[in-house]
Amino acid sequence: MKRLAIVGSTGSIGQNTLRVVEHLSDRFRVFALAANSTVDVLAEQTAAFHPSVVAITDATRVDTFRSCCRQKGVPVPEVVTGEQGLRQIASASEVDIVVAAAVGAAGLVPTYSAVASGKTVTLANKEAMVMAGELLRSKVKETHATIIPIDSEHSAIDQCLRSGRMNEVKRLILTASGGPFRQTPAEQFQEISPEQALNHPVWKMGKRITIDSATLMNKGLEVIEAHWLFDLPPEKIDIMVHPQSVVHSMVEFVDGSIVAQLGTADMRTPIQYALTYPERLPSPVAGLDWSTVSRLEFMPTDRQKFPCISLAYQAMRAGGTMPAVLNAADEIAVAAFLDRKIAFLDIPKLIEKTVNAHQNTAADSIESIVEADRWAREYSRRLT
Amino acid sequence: MKRLAIVGSTGSIGQNTLRVVEHLSDRFRVFALAANSTVDVLAEQTAAFHPSVVAITDATRVDTFRSCCRQKGVPVPEVVTGEQGLRQIASASEVDIVVAAAVGAAGLVPTYSAVASGKTVTLANKEAMVMAGELLRSKVKETHATIIPIDSEHSAIDQCLRSGRMNEVKRLILTASGGPFRQTPAEQFQEISPEQALNHPVWKMGKRITIDSATLMNKGLEVIEAHWLFDLPPEKIDIMVHPQSVVHSMVEFVDGSIVAQLGTADMRTPIQYALTYPERLPSPVAGLDWSTVSRLEFMPTDRQKFPCISLAYQAMRAGGTMPAVLNAADEIAVAAFLDRKIAFLDIPKLIEKTVNAHQNTAADSIESIVEADRWAREYSRRLT
Repeated sequence: MKRLAIVGSTGSIGQNTLRVVEHLSDRFRVFALAANSTVDVLAEQTAAFHPSVVAITDATRVDTFRSCCRQKGVPVPEVVTGEQGLRQIASASEVDIVVAAAVGAAGLVPTYSAVASGKTVTLANKEAMVMAGELLRSKVKETHATIIPIDSEHSAIDQCLRSGRMNEVKRLILTASGGPFRQTPAEQFQEISPEQALNHPVWKMGKRITIDSATLMNKGLEVIEAHWLFDLPPEKIDIMVHPQSVVHSMVEFVDGSIVAQLGTADMRTPIQYALTYPERLPSPVAGLDWSTVSRLEFMPTDRQKFPCISLAYQAMRAGGTMPAVLNAADEIAVAAFLDRKIAFLDIPKLIEKTVNAHQNTAADSIESIVEADRWAREYSRRLT
Repeated sequence: MKRLAIVGSTGSIGQNTLRVVEHLSDRFRVFALAANSTVDVLAEQTAAFHPSVVAITDATRVDTFRSCCRQKGVPVPEVVTGEQGLRQIASASEVDIVVAAAVGAAGLVPTYSAVASGKTVTLANKEAMVMAGELLRSKVKETHATIIPIDSEHSAIDQCLRSGRMNEVKRLILTASGGPFRQTPAEQFQEISPEQALNHPVWKMGKRITIDSATLMNKGLEVIEAHWLFDLPPEKIDIMVHPQSVVHSMVEFVDGSIVAQLGTADMRTPIQYALTYPERLPSPVAGLDWSTVSRLEFMPTDRQKFPCISLAYQAMRAGGTMPAVLNAADEIAVAAFLDRKIAFLDIPKLIEKTVNAHQNTAADSIESIVEADRWAREYSRRLT
């Protein structure tokens, strides 16, 4: 029986993780749940999964959580709060696996704590890897923690890599749905509204990641994540547009063989793969229905239309705190776009200005990364 | 340095194997070459690769071989002949890897000898596995021989299987190009000429395998081969038509993940994979050109139009000597079709009649299998 701490349990990945836990209840027990402020959902999850501890980042929401529990007749578990609370559950000795599913930079600290404590970390929080990849990698070497990706692309790559050795990899090919504007002419990009950008063709996800999918920054961040997860140089990581999102990613080996992972667009598959790794267990997810995917298309990405990709590659090559700055500026730009303060085309412009203004430094401590993140948020906010 | 015996060196797989050996000349040395009767090509190969021994099945061709060598100024190597000669090189103590690339039933004896001698066998001769799969499997267990498939489909499956464990396999999905008559209406099948049937859309191969690709019997034989190679029951082996032949085959795991292997249609890739297994080495084969394969299609097979598939599944389920009989009847039927003695639609009919007339017995010795093969050839020949 493995005991889980799910950081970000009320989000899309957190909820899907709990569905997997329900299905595999003979293998997994929820020790801790953590949410930012959505305490009504957290109370429901508490009723269903009986965690010993819950972490609520926003301490002002604790009373509401308690009353939600009482309304449901659920015993209130131990409650911890703030960043300290997240750190506490991510490193608790009772926990075997930390599901790092917080959205955005907020996930960095608990993810780092989990790695520093030598836990198995199933990682959906790509920002942690983008911001602190180098630091997390060196910590993994020190503590022998295991990081298993949950992102469908990285899970696919992890599965494909098993078909060879790391020194036999020619390149990773991350597939991208291409987002809702793949076929939109460049001259219409100025007019794109938040409603249009939130209408992702394949995956139902949170707002930021959905906008990131529309600008393809999501794919850029995934490239950086892959760079650190799999310890491969930028020139060995490519992107290919694949609108059907059936092939979740591929690995090309030096002998010319390409190994790909395919499946339905259901996050429970990579979540379960990560939780049960290296085992594969039967899943309630419906198998791929070939009759609906009889035709698969592949094409290069258009870096002119989607400049976020080049920005991400530049930040990855620059290293240091640059990827953290890229990520922070993107988070601010996306929020400003959703608030209708800036236009769709301003997202990459704002990121580029912030990145260009940043004095790059070594990303050798959480503090330096958090400081770069803070600086970039402040700087880019002023541009909105 | 690994020493090879290449059985069937003058055929398509044999020639491609020698190209791989040339590329990896620091790893492989040709100890023996074997051909049936194409001694001019064999003499050229002798000049280029300096085998210590050559086996010529048709003893009447030995003198011609010697004079071909003399004409080229090549020292004549030791020559062995007949089935005994094949057996001798396949089990020679100097040999590490036997490349089993003979066409048809002729490959059975040397393949069995190689397995019985505990060699690493890279297997292109699917008929050996179809006819004697059960026997070869039990011999492998006894001698700890290793069989690595060369067929592009089975090589693909072998590569995909590395992504999980055997008890985690839900099913193998062998892809089929669908042959030249995939889109031909059933009512035109009676008129199909040998010239039309020999015009395969993707692979350039020998005549029998090309006709087998047109009837889809090739895929049926591959299903039987997969059954024995990977020790999976018939219900876990499926076929899917994929006209582009870019995805060479797939494995679906119990967790819903499908892992596929893709690449250019160049037999040097699976040959090299088998020879260097479990390593992957750089290859001169051009990488997959995605611009030419931007669209991949997948569809079910039409078992009405291609009854050979059902015949193969029936023979596989029946077991015993039935697959050997299926294979022999197919070889005779294809030869009769190429000789314009029977029509295209008569191929499955002739096979069905032969299979129905066969008294199935245990395939527990080479003798019983050879006897079933002999019976089936005689019986089906009488039907042409």
